Amino acid sequence: MTNIINKRIKKLRSWMRENGLSAFIFPSSDPHNSEYVAEHWKSREWISGFSGSAGTAVVTLEHAALWTDSRYFIAAEKELKGTDFKLMKLRVEGTPSVAEWLGTMLSSSETAVVGLDGYVNSLDEVSVLEQELATRGNISVRTDVDPVDELWIDRPVIPDNMVHLHPLEYAGEPTSSKISRVRQCLVDNGADGLLVTALDEIAWVLNLRGSDVHCNPVFVSYLLFSPEKVTLYINNLKLSEDVKVYLSTEKIEVEEYDAIVEGLRTYRGESLLIDDRATNYLLATAAPYEKVIAGVSPIASMKAIKNKIEQEGFRAAMLRDGIAMVKFLAWLNPAVEAGNQTEISLDERLTALRAEQPKFKGISFDTIVGYEAHGAIVHYEATPESDIPVESHGLVLIDSGAQYLDGTTDITRTIALGDLTEEQCRVYTLVLKGHIQLDLCRFPAGACGSQIDALARAPMWREGYNYMHGTGHGVGSYLNVHEGPHQIRMEWRSAPLQAGMTVTNEPGLYLEGKFGVRIENTLLIVPAETTAFGDFLKFETLTLAPIDKKPIVLEMLSEEEREWLNSYHRRVYDKLSLYLDDEEKEWLRLATLPI
Amino acid sequence: MTNIINKRIKKLRSWMRENGLSAFIFPSSDPHNSEYVAEHWKSREWISGFSGSAGTAVVTLEHAALWTDSRYFIAAEKELKGTDFKLMKLRVEGTPSVAEWLGTMLSSSETAVVGLDGYVNSLDEVSVLEQELATRGNISVRTDVDPVDELWIDRPVIPDNMVHLHPLEYAGEPTSSKISRVRQCLVDNGADGLLVTALDEIAWVLNLRGSDVHCNPVFVSYLLFSPEKVTLYINNLKLSEDVKVYLSTEKIEVEEYDAIVEGLRTYRGESLLIDDRATNYLLATAAPYEKVIAGVSPIASMKAIKNKIEQEGFRAAMLRDGIAMVKFLAWLNPAVEAGNQTEISLDERLTALRAEQPKFKGISFDTIVGYEAHGAIVHYEATPESDIPVESHGLVLIDSGAQYLDGTTDITRTIALGDLTEEQCRVYTLVLKGHIQLDLCRFPAGACGSQIDALARAPMWREGYNYMHGTGHGVGSYLNVHEGPHQIRMEWRSAPLQAGMTVTNEPGLYLEGKFGVRIENTLLIVPAETTAFGDFLKFETLTLAPIDKKPIVLEMLSEEEREWLNSYHRRVYDKLSLYLDDEEKEWLRLATLPI
Repeated sequence: MTNIINKRIKKLRSWMRENGLSAFIFPSSDPHNSEYVAEHWKSREWISGFSGSAGTAVVTLEHAALWTDSRYFIAAEKELKGTDFKLMKLRVEGTPSVAEWLGTMLSSSETAVVGLDGYVNSLDEVSVLEQELATRGNISVRTDVDPVDELWIDRPVIPDNMVHLHPLEYAGEPTSSKISRVRQCLVDNGADGLLVTALDEIAWVLNLRGSDVHCNPVFVSYLLFSPEKVTLYINNLKLSEDVKVYLSTEKIEVEEYDAIVEGLRTYRGESLLIDDRATNYLLATAAPYEKVIAGVSPIASMKAIKNKIEQEGFRAAMLRDGIAMVKFLAWLNPAVEAGNQTEISLDERLTALRAEQPKFKGISFDTIVGYEAHGAIVHYEATPESDIPVESHGLVLIDSGAQYLDGTTDITRTIALGDLTEEQCRVYTLVLKGHIQLDLCRFPAGACGSQIDALARAPMWREGYNYMHGTGHGVGSYLNVHEGPHQIRMEWRSAPLQAGMTVTNEPGLYLEGKFGVRIENTLLIVPAETTAFGDFLKFETLTLAPIDKKPIVLEMLSEEEREWLNSYHRRVYDKLSLYLDDEEKEWLRLATLPI
Repeated sequence: MTNIINKRIKKLRSWMRENGLSAFIFPSSDPHNSEYVAEHWKSREWISGFSGSAGTAVVTLEHAALWTDSRYFIAAEKELKGTDFKLMKLRVEGTPSVAEWLGTMLSSSETAVVGLDGYVNSLDEVSVLEQELATRGNISVRTDVDPVDELWIDRPVIPDNMVHLHPLEYAGEPTSSKISRVRQCLVDNGADGLLVTALDEIAWVLNLRGSDVHCNPVFVSYLLFSPEKVTLYINNLKLSEDVKVYLSTEKIEVEEYDAIVEGLRTYRGESLLIDDRATNYLLATAAPYEKVIAGVSPIASMKAIKNKIEQEGFRAAMLRDGIAMVKFLAWLNPAVEAGNQTEISLDERLTALRAEQPKFKGISFDTIVGYEAHGAIVHYEATPESDIPVESHGLVLIDSGAQYLDGTTDITRTIALGDLTEEQCRVYTLVLKGHIQLDLCRFPAGACGSQIDALARAPMWREGYNYMHGTGHGVGSYLNVHEGPHQIRMEWRSAPLQAGMTVTNEPGLYLEGKFGVRIENTLLIVPAETTAFGDFLKFETLTLAPIDKKPIVLEMLSEEEREWLNSYHRRVYDKLSLYLDDEEKEWLRLATLPI
């Protein structure tokens, strides 16, 4: 890669000189503020060679640097080796911010212009950057330039995959009803229009799905609510006759994807709700300034609460996913003992078993199979270069999930493949205790995830352990595996947990260079009871798959925790055993015997 | 009271007409944003008759209303009866805000002027009010008027009690050192000056104490850090020769209390840090606008972390307080059985026992003795009218504390006086479980109280119970019993819990009309261990007094919770038994026997 990267940097610099720019910034995002982006928008990876999901590359006429977070330090170090890019470790003391670094790098020039593509940076990001650069010298920002199209010769096109209907038997609520609920929220916000740029929000409102982003069944488009109409901005080629008829029945007008800018410029309503943190700079500034009301799109919160049909869909999808998981787990230990298994071969086997299930549409994220020390790398994904043999000792961490027509799954199991160290057993049991305590909890309606996060951590905190990721995120209904607005994490997230929301329960522990443990189920928030003290909520465990008992240090579990595990296992056996052959059934019986 | 109140309203209204005002607002605060204020500043109580600690009275030419929160609904209802004041229940649906109500009341007038005393409203409050009123009509705010001095004939003077030295053997750090630490914080904030208006912050920095506010050993004054000097603005009569000499040795200049306005107007530094949420409007606007940096005073955070000598002082004070508590608890049941005890007589007995202890300086807040249903009124304080006989059945909740020269105490015990209902026992045990779980917890350095609050609530949430107050607050060192910046509560408070901070642990449950339970110890935050996952903190329990075992439902406690109680009781016995007579010692032995 090295020579290619440095050649690209060289080409970029001559383009910068021609265009009077002193620096150019490449973020990780796309025009829709997506967590995962289509290949077309991976220009940060194109210019730097760094393939992680989060990072910012900056190139000046003389220097180049790439910022990423601790998840990717090791990977970035490797991928940037031999290139002009210097790794900037985010949240490590002494690491300058992009603005600080640019301030230093450009301090010699009288005036400097920093370029970025206004389509892939949010209004908020650009404003903050402008302010920060202004305090560091005479540095201005240009947002209307994009060298990538010109320089990236074989750049993939914007995906033009077909859009398909997501029928009411899975969606549970007609588009017309969703639209009128959105309109009611707009009235409450004092707005008569709304710009929707998040791809999963558009898919949810329209009961449509696509395949434009790896693992995420979304399609590239914008949606604009005006006082009298709703317009979908999309490449017309993506729409089959069926979908066109459907959209017309639902009174959704269709315009070309690029026409959104003109749609905003000529917006006829009185006021337009735009999320200034999520909307890209060029769209956010295309709308008439005096009409814009900055605020969060109401759709994320509506989408997060699953209706009864979506809830039933989740239960059905979890059953099929559980069957695939049990078939995989029953196969796993003998297969490893027989030899010739690697992290990638385990991943392939698991995906193949899921693919046998009805309504399977693909995996919901890249499977993480981390054996022993690889399990301690939180966002590890085995590649042909990193792949290692999986042997019959120690722990393997497997975090995986699938897209089914009726629901999305996300599950992590950590499995003993043979002898374990005492430390592995102790750490595994601490994670399990946290997982159970969170699952068992009830909480008052209105509580947010940050308020209950510590319940999953308290057992490990007592022993001096902690994990640096969130404890839980929402899961879409045949949509993105990560969705908000609620989260369970240490940092404050004010969005309340509400009945009907899905949320993962995934505490973990990672001992660098040794092993990692994570135990994850997906939960549904359901009403518990109403007392003189208000409404209380609890969790229904959606995921159905045994939790490995072998690593458990029995005396570390309380009576109540043992009971939880036994009762969960009883339920897993009762639900899944009907769908298994005799051998698998016997394996599951043993795997779910009470402790 | 009624006739007096309505007469006062009448006098106020004619004053308002003379001065061209359409309304006047009386908050609960003083010029120092104190939680508890000297009699001089109780003008809200003077105009309305409402004596609670929190409330806002507003009088227009035709109407009068008083806003307070749920703690005081019952008391306010009684106190306002027969007056022109209408009770406005804060945080109850349908209750208008002060601005909303004024908007409606003053809607008929072309222009209206609302008056308030700029000395007893913060800059932030006035700004918000001005904005809110501006959107509700042509309503402006005047802050330079105060009818109270003129109309309140027998208004108590601003307290002129003597200030005394708080010697280094208790304070643990010389004023000179505190001042240089404050100056360092100012440098870090880019400021060269600081206005300190919080009375406990001034007392802490100067190692001085006073007696101007009931239960709070503070003195009325301001402190101004300028680039070259520190000036104390105070009524000179309050300073003895000793204190004057001391201040001069410490190079603290002294000016009259009222001279602060001039001091700010002529402030010579480049920049002045002012807390816009805590500083009163008139002072905040007296300082040259372009020099003001809005920010939190660094002193609250410095004061919250107790030095080694203060920590030792706390331990010693808790020992003496524990002795008084045990003498009281040993006396309690036989005395109640003998008859003729009331809530007030219990309070008097407890205070008398505390007063026998060396270094006792008074109570740290008004004792709460709530028998049975009174225990469910969270901020109940027995008055001659509300006082009831205490009988030998049910629960009595006693929340009390003292000021000692070497520390401040705050403890709640709920005691079985005879037969209890099953519900009382179950609820008591849930509160105890929460108390123990919080005491047992460890947490990573940097965590804030909101992150661990749920540990105290999880057991009761599981059963559909909750309490609507915070779980813990800081406690001053021979200073205010409530101090920040940290808190343990459901609402987000970002101030991290740090080693050296005191914090209470006081979960409770309140069954209206039946009984209340609260169990409170004061804790010290101490280092636990440093691991690969960072620094961890834990609690040292400072309070030493038995927790009543009689109401405990044993099978509801986990093994670990029983062990906690037994080990706490062992410690209480070991520490206190040396200082008790034989009878008290035997009582304590039984009270602390393992369960």
